[in-house]
Amino acid sequence: MAQFLTDELKALGAEVEQRPLGKQPGKEHLELPPVVVARYGNDPNKRTILVYGHYDVQPALKEDGWATEPFELTIDEKDRMYGRGSTDDKGPVLGWLNVIEAHKKAGVEFPVNLLCCFEGMEEYGSEGLDDFIHAESKKFFKDADAVCISDNYWLGTEKPCLTYGLRGCNYYSISVSGPAQDLHSGVFGGSAHEPMTDLVHVMSKLVDSQGNILIPGLMDLVEPVTEEEKSLYGNISYTMENLHESLGAETGIHPNKERTLMARWRFPSLSIHGIEGAFSAPGAKTVIPAKVIGKFSIRTVPNMESPDVNKLVFDYVKAEFAKLNSKNTLDVWLQHDGKWWVASPKHWNFSAASKAAKQVFGVEPDMTREGGRYVF
Amino acid sequence: MAQFLTDELKALGAEVEQRPLGKQPGKEHLELPPVVVARYGNDPNKRTILVYGHYDVQPALKEDGWATEPFELTIDEKDRMYGRGSTDDKGPVLGWLNVIEAHKKAGVEFPVNLLCCFEGMEEYGSEGLDDFIHAESKKFFKDADAVCISDNYWLGTEKPCLTYGLRGCNYYSISVSGPAQDLHSGVFGGSAHEPMTDLVHVMSKLVDSQGNILIPGLMDLVEPVTEEEKSLYGNISYTMENLHESLGAETGIHPNKERTLMARWRFPSLSIHGIEGAFSAPGAKTVIPAKVIGKFSIRTVPNMESPDVNKLVFDYVKAEFAKLNSKNTLDVWLQHDGKWWVASPKHWNFSAASKAAKQVFGVEPDMTREGGRYVF
Repeated sequence: MAQFLTDELKALGAEVEQRPLGKQPGKEHLELPPVVVARYGNDPNKRTILVYGHYDVQPALKEDGWATEPFELTIDEKDRMYGRGSTDDKGPVLGWLNVIEAHKKAGVEFPVNLLCCFEGMEEYGSEGLDDFIHAESKKFFKDADAVCISDNYWLGTEKPCLTYGLRGCNYYSISVSGPAQDLHSGVFGGSAHEPMTDLVHVMSKLVDSQGNILIPGLMDLVEPVTEEEKSLYGNISYTMENLHESLGAETGIHPNKERTLMARWRFPSLSIHGIEGAFSAPGAKTVIPAKVIGKFSIRTVPNMESPDVNKLVFDYVKAEFAKLNSKNTLDVWLQHDGKWWVASPKHWNFSAASKAAKQVFGVEPDMTREGGRYVF
Repeated sequence: MAQFLTDELKALGAEVEQRPLGKQPGKEHLELPPVVVARYGNDPNKRTILVYGHYDVQPALKEDGWATEPFELTIDEKDRMYGRGSTDDKGPVLGWLNVIEAHKKAGVEFPVNLLCCFEGMEEYGSEGLDDFIHAESKKFFKDADAVCISDNYWLGTEKPCLTYGLRGCNYYSISVSGPAQDLHSGVFGGSAHEPMTDLVHVMSKLVDSQGNILIPGLMDLVEPVTEEEKSLYGNISYTMENLHESLGAETGIHPNKERTLMARWRFPSLSIHGIEGAFSAPGAKTVIPAKVIGKFSIRTVPNMESPDVNKLVFDYVKAEFAKLNSKNTLDVWLQHDGKWWVASPKHWNFSAASKAAKQVFGVEPDMTREGGRYVF
């Protein structure tokens, strides 16, 4: 994908390079996918916009429940495109190439200088990108006047939106280990502490079924909602039907759109993603796994600072494990973190984007905040 | 493996057949591995012993933590053999072939008629075997005077044992589903009920870290311990060091050998094996799984009847889920069950086996009960 983007951008007349990310501590043996950087236009009388996107995707298997092959683009009778990454985020990245192409074909002058930053590590927390951006901020990206991150969703299906805030993400692992090797539950069941039992108990203490995070002190870090902020949610073009449509089910937690949007945008959330080392295939296996690693993440918001969140998480997880009186061994660590970000929706970058969106779609876009990506 | 056993048994002069298992309800499309049945000797003046073993094994990957390739037999400097199934249960099955071979080579008359029943579905709960045995009890197996199941472990490493009881196994699945497809936790985290959260909560209510089953009424089904039975455990050649050695860790639950052996042999246990449909690979994935299936099993003992156990499990799991007030959907079902079994350790079959074990190993074998296999 990096090579495809490079070739296509070159063909459009952009100056393009594939840049390596710096080696990551403990992962020096891994060759990380490169960042594709590009410049299109170099007119000192125009503003320079840096656009960001990513060309990597989450893993996907047809067996996960995909109706079509995830890595073959399939277009249905309504012209909807299906494929891993069509919205997150290969489609939006290609959108920028289409924009350049469309201007060329129409013979319309491109109104800004464009800088591109397309990475391949976003789905692993954009490891290495912070350092890369920091270094390039004085070099390749030095004349960027504003940044546009094209990696987001519309709220519904009718109206575009411009996002002025993103939640961050702290991703954790909890390991519990006991016996030196997997055990047969027929032979050992009842006689030894089982890591899976302990892990399930500890993970059940993280969040309740209503989405309330149970880690003491965590909610105290969250910036209080002001009356002014509260008034913003009512005007957003979003309904509970939109939520149900995107879920494909009526399993929303909150009774109305305001609370739903606040839960998505401005409050933290905690999701349990899975367990490594346990039996995960279809069918039956009567094993007692020797070591299991639970994965969960917290979507963070202002003013949650990562070190504070980590301390609360680590202390709580260890305290909950201690209550179990198990002879197994627990460890908990941060896999990666990405900071939340909030900007002013009144900045000229947002005004210009709003005007452009209105011209194309015929409606004012919603000014929104969103879920959680690595932001810079 | 079925073909190998067939060929080898034929070469030793046995009458051998590969018999299909009956089609299983809902699995008519699956071709189940055959049962290898054999007869060696047909002397009406000898007793006829039916020996059972299985040639299938649990799944195994080097990545699971094996020191050697699980499917290549490796022999270490102390002549110990490593490979999936060396003890459970390919080794014991081959033992019977070695016994015939040794008698032939030594020119010693084989003292009994031998019937063999070697199946390939044991690790999936011996599906179909009950019906097979039932049908053959009047045919191929009709003159069996006693049965010898060679599918068990010694307690320690010094002394053989003869098992007069086995726990049964009821294997359950709990599914929780909500959204129509997997969700991005950044976008939806906090706004929708997450199946993984609900499942972890429900599973945390099944058993505590000390191995106590939390399902009300379940322990009432267990036959009370008599004083006579209690007195048996003290004499068993087993120590806490044996337990720690086999665990490779000091993570035993109970303070002494008597309670440890009772937990393994005559009390039920509940193990959580894993979760299907959640993220289970190394690394990080921020997905909210749409549907997850938790797997657990209960090792059953006299007098727990499977329908009674099922009712207690189903009612309790549904009640615990109801407490969560989640809009997700839960289902719980039995994957398979195998009944416990207890015989008299004073039967002539055990006396003969005890005498033979003493002759070979120079010590009286322990009379034990064990974990949990499919028994008939």
